[in-house]
Amino acid sequence: MSAPKKKKTIQKTAEKTGLGMDLLDGVRKGNVRAIARMISLAEAAKPESRPALAEIFRNAGNAHVVGMTGVPGSGKSTLVRGLAKAIRASGRRVGIVAIDPSSPFSGGAILGDRVRMTELTGDDGVFIRSMATRGALGGLARSSLEAVDVLDAAGFDLILIETVGVGQDEVDVVQAAHTVVVISAPGLGDEIQAIKAGILEIADIHVVSKCDRSDANATITDLKGMLTLGVRAMNMGDGDWQMPVLATSAEAGEGIDGLLAAIDDHGKHLADSGAIEERRRQILEMRVLKTAEDIIRKDFRGGRDKLSGLMKGLEDRKMGPHEAALKLLDKIKKD
Amino acid sequence: MSAPKKKKTIQKTAEKTGLGMDLLDGVRKGNVRAIARMISLAEAAKPESRPALAEIFRNAGNAHVVGMTGVPGSGKSTLVRGLAKAIRASGRRVGIVAIDPSSPFSGGAILGDRVRMTELTGDDGVFIRSMATRGALGGLARSSLEAVDVLDAAGFDLILIETVGVGQDEVDVVQAAHTVVVISAPGLGDEIQAIKAGILEIADIHVVSKCDRSDANATITDLKGMLTLGVRAMNMGDGDWQMPVLATSAEAGEGIDGLLAAIDDHGKHLADSGAIEERRRQILEMRVLKTAEDIIRKDFRGGRDKLSGLMKGLEDRKMGPHEAALKLLDKIKKD
Repeated sequence: MSAPKKKKTIQKTAEKTGLGMDLLDGVRKGNVRAIARMISLAEAAKPESRPALAEIFRNAGNAHVVGMTGVPGSGKSTLVRGLAKAIRASGRRVGIVAIDPSSPFSGGAILGDRVRMTELTGDDGVFIRSMATRGALGGLARSSLEAVDVLDAAGFDLILIETVGVGQDEVDVVQAAHTVVVISAPGLGDEIQAIKAGILEIADIHVVSKCDRSDANATITDLKGMLTLGVRAMNMGDGDWQMPVLATSAEAGEGIDGLLAAIDDHGKHLADSGAIEERRRQILEMRVLKTAEDIIRKDFRGGRDKLSGLMKGLEDRKMGPHEAALKLLDKIKKD
Repeated sequence: MSAPKKKKTIQKTAEKTGLGMDLLDGVRKGNVRAIARMISLAEAAKPESRPALAEIFRNAGNAHVVGMTGVPGSGKSTLVRGLAKAIRASGRRVGIVAIDPSSPFSGGAILGDRVRMTELTGDDGVFIRSMATRGALGGLARSSLEAVDVLDAAGFDLILIETVGVGQDEVDVVQAAHTVVVISAPGLGDEIQAIKAGILEIADIHVVSKCDRSDANATITDLKGMLTLGVRAMNMGDGDWQMPVLATSAEAGEGIDGLLAAIDDHGKHLADSGAIEERRRQILEMRVLKTAEDIIRKDFRGGRDKLSGLMKGLEDRKMGPHEAALKLLDKIKKD
């Protein structure tokens, strides 16, 4: 889509009414307040803001979206911070969507960690947004990927999605990236290692963080061993990408440039091999599905009366949840 | 529902065809193989097994369902094992549904932990089932709560659901219990503590595990402090339940009987105050909603052609995920 054509579409749509229509221009210009307010509209999920968010989606699709995930204690947040600095140093703009309860950008803020981000604030080439992991309306995947759209439409070159690697929704979100980085770390307990096993397969790039530690080499060896044993990239359309295993120490600033280079390489690989098309399709399919679920959930919570007629049968156990769910869907259809 | 009436209903339904109809009698008699196969049918989610699972639901509703959750490293699994032994010692039967990737009953088995359960095997008053946390069809909440139904219909007195306290689906499942036990432990890192903050509010009973450790008292004090600061039970219909904070050491066998007593107290409190009715209603509502989402997800994955007509518009960004989701729901309606 050429630039002039884009501008015309926006002007035309801006004539329509709707929440956030006045923000579209600001978002496209990278105005921090407009971006923040538009993301809040995505979180609030009001029907009146749908036209503006549809317009945002229309303008998105240019950024390289990178999912960063790892188990609690793997040093994700420090690495994300380091990577953001490296991206800035390369002259590009970076957006961060943090939906990790252990992140200093989101829930971790209760620990006072947010102060560690100050070195990145005041730079309008960086935008950081933390998303609530447990909203009343659910819809974590939908709203955080709409936040990615907003940053994308605002022209950020790279967008980092940080999530903890536990929980289906969290894993779904990070998989809605073009490049998935899975972070492992030395010295974590057995229970954490078991959780880790579940996310290794979604990686395009593996990172072992905290490589200043003496036990880091064992972790790298273990990881390479697991990969040889058959844990492979689950993401489709990867062509013949050779999955790198990188050692980093975000605290010492080591390996971060190498990670950025690997991310850029993967982006280039997707484009050159044409695999990006399949990846984009998968992401869109997932988003439609998550949004459909969201619509149902909202319909349901907004109008419990739809279910109230069914509750008696359920409580008496004359009707099971499956039958009730079918009837609920039927009631939604008739609206 | 009286016993003879129940029997009649089953016989009548058993005449219908359908997967698992032949297992109903075995499940009700507590036959281990029948129970295991019926749970597998719930996991497989084939339409042909719906009548049998509906019959199972009709026969469930008598067990006291207890959700056990905590952050990775909190010692959940050891505590669940200890509690199961205490329940057996009290002369009651216990079922366990483990959907925790860090549990020795499920994903943790890759660590060889499963062997630790041997002391409970060979006793038909105990049934342990681990559920895959990341199935191809999703539906973790639906299938694990159907597994609870199966154990309920099989006459287990208490059913323990073990989940890790991270991830929306996992938290939803554990909230579908009559009594929710949240486990904290001393000596966990900051990132883990931040995650913990998100699940404190769903507790009916707090447990601090590993109380043989010297730093356990500080954890108990911290927890009581957080509770005083305003983290309260989110679950509705609790009447005036006084949330206990219990110290346990599952390894040393300390505090486990006290935990069982608190669980029994909470069950009695729900019954006496009538709060159980509201709790049951909430659980059923949640199950219907999760099942409706499941149906849509399956419809979608089973017939991607429904979406294929929409993909072009999405890929060209002429249509956003929200518009596509509405069209998808519309297509589902027309079937």
